[in-house]
Amino acid sequence: MTSNTPPYLAELDVALRQSVDLHLHDEEGFGLMVRYALGWVTANGEPYNQPTGKRLRPLVMLLCANAISEDWRSALPAAVAVELLHNFSLIHDDIQDDSPVRHSRPTVWKIWGIANAINAGDTLFTLAYSALADLKDHLDPALVVEIWRTFNETNIELTRGQHLDMRFERQSSVTVEQYLSMIKGKSAALIATSAYFGALIASKDINRAKHFADFGLNLGIAFQIHDDILGIWGDSSITGKSAATDLISRKKSLPVLHGLNASDRLRELYNKPVFEEDDLEAIFQELTVVGSQAYTRQQENHYYTIAMQSLEMANPDPALRPALDDFVNFLFQRTY
Amino acid sequence: MTSNTPPYLAELDVALRQSVDLHLHDEEGFGLMVRYALGWVTANGEPYNQPTGKRLRPLVMLLCANAISEDWRSALPAAVAVELLHNFSLIHDDIQDDSPVRHSRPTVWKIWGIANAINAGDTLFTLAYSALADLKDHLDPALVVEIWRTFNETNIELTRGQHLDMRFERQSSVTVEQYLSMIKGKSAALIATSAYFGALIASKDINRAKHFADFGLNLGIAFQIHDDILGIWGDSSITGKSAATDLISRKKSLPVLHGLNASDRLRELYNKPVFEEDDLEAIFQELTVVGSQAYTRQQENHYYTIAMQSLEMANPDPALRPALDDFVNFLFQRTY
Repeated sequence: MTSNTPPYLAELDVALRQSVDLHLHDEEGFGLMVRYALGWVTANGEPYNQPTGKRLRPLVMLLCANAISEDWRSALPAAVAVELLHNFSLIHDDIQDDSPVRHSRPTVWKIWGIANAINAGDTLFTLAYSALADLKDHLDPALVVEIWRTFNETNIELTRGQHLDMRFERQSSVTVEQYLSMIKGKSAALIATSAYFGALIASKDINRAKHFADFGLNLGIAFQIHDDILGIWGDSSITGKSAATDLISRKKSLPVLHGLNASDRLRELYNKPVFEEDDLEAIFQELTVVGSQAYTRQQENHYYTIAMQSLEMANPDPALRPALDDFVNFLFQRTY
Repeated sequence: MTSNTPPYLAELDVALRQSVDLHLHDEEGFGLMVRYALGWVTANGEPYNQPTGKRLRPLVMLLCANAISEDWRSALPAAVAVELLHNFSLIHDDIQDDSPVRHSRPTVWKIWGIANAINAGDTLFTLAYSALADLKDHLDPALVVEIWRTFNETNIELTRGQHLDMRFERQSSVTVEQYLSMIKGKSAALIATSAYFGALIASKDINRAKHFADFGLNLGIAFQIHDDILGIWGDSSITGKSAATDLISRKKSLPVLHGLNASDRLRELYNKPVFEEDDLEAIFQELTVVGSQAYTRQQENHYYTIAMQSLEMANPDPALRPALDDFVNFLFQRTY
């Protein structure tokens, strides 16, 4: 981003806080967990201001709105909604994955217990809908209803993706098609909807906005695959994770699934109860031998290409689109 | 209900199944847990048809709609929504309360684990919104948006009530005001909204529907207090629960809170780690001595009276209202 970038993140932050303050009536600590999860307070309720998360989804939305119209601010209530929804899913994910840490802080369930964390997630889920409904103040009701309907579909996709993700962890064999269906729901659907909402609010044109949805969906799939590559071959000085982190946690990411389906030797190595010192190196070698990195990069490029073709069909304003292009380039910087 | 009662429950059941089939795309077992929770299949996916729950909230809605207009069917999508929402809250409640059984069957978390049960609840939460959005096919979009906005507020109330309920369990002292605030959120808000939606869809008149909302809110509070009385003094041959069940589980219901705030002796008894044989009898006596049953019945009557006054102000059709009156009488049958 350059110094000419509009103040998306600053205004999003203000809108997020205003929306939560408006819809969440505090009583007996109700609200503390939500504000903690959003990175605004400590567990004791004292001010805290470290950023939590990259606000990827609202950024996609505001950039898509701004690639059509100068008035990207009309999309702010929807940008707030997707960010709140994303944070709802993180709270429940962290319980489901038994994760003790998120953004360098203890997770909500780790501090307040599972029962309270479930409820804090449910509250954020509703707050996301409350924020989205605030679009009614400035948009035609029929358009608001179309946006609501799409949000519902997206959330079914999210829970479907989450279901598959949890199921695949217990499954000995997962196909590439199953994996792509899972990340479509779990990761890409909300990015598609973010792009769709931004374009729809800015253009009021459903057909044009659907091309933006296709752009977002394929961008989301490509970005998840990109992340899968970084999880194995990423430069740890850039990603901030140790190299091969996904191998050590035995994550069934796309390169691994490709390798497992192609190599008996790799399946044997990956099924060892404990990795010995040479095993990681052997896994790396085997992934190269069977072409898993090349395959995964080719898949990333495939979805990235569809994304960019969809963006062309969406016909963004040539004078306004550079910020969106810069953002996409930034996302796919090669760090491996 | 008489034989002249419209087929609310039968048509609701059809509408519930159609709505879930429409919005839930099955894949790899996604949907099984939801259908199990609704009482339609066994844990293995085989047909099952024992009723689960009394469908109280949709009945309130359809009866309120039908107290204004013959066309109660227009409210069916909203009736489906409140029932799905109620079932979402049961799935998460059962995790939060560590409850192994619901409607004489193992709870969702007991069969599929906490992680999957959280996700099944999240799915039902979204399905409730999806059902509600189906109102768009027959209603003016501005009215649909008002209904959606109200649903959001209701769900914040539900999670606020749940928060307070969990918090009060760990608190040594809870006031009657705090308790009433909790049941308003946890129990009465959704009944208020059910009455509001039924009346609003039937009349298109927000002000008239708000009287129905007041009716539902106070009815819901009165009904919860009624239930609190049954939990201690209920005739076990009618309630199906053992007598004094709420005392044995040390539930902080309204009569108990009244007693604890009025009697040192009761506080002492209630704080015993284990009840001895004579303790229950002593607790019963002490509740009578300090007037806790009388107080609680007076509270029930207070909210019941406000409910009926609100219903008068809502001006139901004299020819159509008897079914609603019968239902209310049925709810408050004295079984103690």
